[in-house]
Amino acid sequence: MSSEPNGDLVFKALAHPFRRRLLDQIRDEPKTTGNLCEAHPGVDRCTVMQHLRILEEAGLVIAKREGRERWNHLNALPIKAISDRWISQYANHALSVLEMLSNDLA
Amino acid sequence: MSSEPNGDLVFKALAHPFRRRLLDQIRDEPKTTGNLCEAHPGVDRCTVMQHLRILEEAGLVIAKREGRERWNHLNALPIKAISDRWISQYANHALSVLEMLSNDLA
Repeated sequence: MSSEPNGDLVFKALAHPFRRRLLDQIRDEPKTTGNLCEAHPGVDRCTVMQHLRILEEAGLVIAKREGRERWNHLNALPIKAISDRWISQYANHALSVLEMLSNDLA
Repeated sequence: MSSEPNGDLVFKALAHPFRRRLLDQIRDEPKTTGNLCEAHPGVDRCTVMQHLRILEEAGLVIAKREGRERWNHLNALPIKAISDRWISQYANHALSVLEMLSNDLA
């Protein structure tokens, strides 16, 4: 759909529980692909890398190479876009509260 | 996964572009199933109802019956849970900015 050029990739990437777990693991700090493979001893390296590639193609992971290591960073912007798409009325409400607050302080 | 009891249903529901479009259509105000069917003349009523059922099972749609009509309301809480799961650090940052601002105003 033209209204969500990358949307399909993002939602498809998020639809798999293993990929959501990978995102959980890089939420607070980036991890190397090696770290992520070690965290899942029951899953072979190729499978982990395949899932990381899907996350990267969806823009949810940004990978940076440093020497022989590949650092996987979470990019939360596509997640923010999901929330903005359906809960902007909540954000608007929060903004109104903030506005009232700043009027009271002025 | 025990950490996301309803998560799988939510992400699976969101993975289909037609269901995302239905959520767009009830974002600002609830719509009857009839309204939603009329908005998609190329899709038969059974298919629309099937997609609505998947959204309802995922907790993204709350349906209320009024007489012969079924009103479909968006429930944005599962969307908020997605955003909270991965972008709480952004929220924390926003809160820190707000805290600095209120300290400056005090």
